[in-house]
Amino acid sequence: MYTVRFIWVGKTQEAYLKTGIEAYLSKLKRYVVVELLEVKPANYSGGDASHWRVQETQAILKKVRSSETTIVLDERGKQSTSKQFAHRLEDLKSLQYERVNFVIGGAFGLDAALLKPSEMLSLSAMTFTHQMVRLVLLEQVYRAFTILNGESYHHE
Amino acid sequence: MYTVRFIWVGKTQEAYLKTGIEAYLSKLKRYVVVELLEVKPANYSGGDASHWRVQETQAILKKVRSSETTIVLDERGKQSTSKQFAHRLEDLKSLQYERVNFVIGGAFGLDAALLKPSEMLSLSAMTFTHQMVRLVLLEQVYRAFTILNGESYHHE
Repeated sequence: MYTVRFIWVGKTQEAYLKTGIEAYLSKLKRYVVVELLEVKPANYSGGDASHWRVQETQAILKKVRSSETTIVLDERGKQSTSKQFAHRLEDLKSLQYERVNFVIGGAFGLDAALLKPSEMLSLSAMTFTHQMVRLVLLEQVYRAFTILNGESYHHE
Repeated sequence: MYTVRFIWVGKTQEAYLKTGIEAYLSKLKRYVVVELLEVKPANYSGGDASHWRVQETQAILKKVRSSETTIVLDERGKQSTSKQFAHRLEDLKSLQYERVNFVIGGAFGLDAALLKPSEMLSLSAMTFTHQMVRLVLLEQVYRAFTILNGESYHHE
């Protein structure tokens, strides 16, 4: 069964974002198996940002199998319209990947060289908070499935 | 006094978005005078989308003075990084515009030919819901002021 998994660092702190994220996770379940993995943040009391970045990336790496597609959210990634993104998700499905992972780094980002993602996706040229990215991504994945199902949610 | 005004169509319906929007409106007040104008939506029981679009655009036009800058949020608009956006806001301030209006259309969009905005700004190549755009825009305007004030909120 086609599974979409979201992997991010730490729990969602803002209650309002948490509510929105949970609403979209639940809506998404109409279309696909949905998994959420909240990786434990590094211990920010010792070391520096690059150290924490590596530690959190390694924690994510342990959870991802090589048979799976891993799409990392990154400002330097590829931008696409919602429609293009929907069709990309459909392509991945037809390639028989068992699971697609969407990975969002923590406040200090990820070590891309270490993670070697299949793809980098950019939601915007602007920088969003790493917690708001969760909500925006979920809405896009939900939108993608409504597009693929020819539903009226999306209009241009 | 430099004023940033947000103009959009109708109240924010989702409670979680409303909470987030209110939080950023309140944070923004540390830096600038903030105004919010929620224009009455068209009567969707008669007519069609283009009719409602014109009606809502006209309602917004009545509120905007020609001495003010009007930036419309639109997918076809110009994309910029958060830093570029911050500097654009600073430029507008130095040009002595009394007020900058950020305008977000309703579910059916705006009539750009009628509105003739000073600028069109795109937050993403992707389509967001017109209510989520409010939250994302507010976070960007808040981020812009933290950048201009050299605060640590934004990091690349």
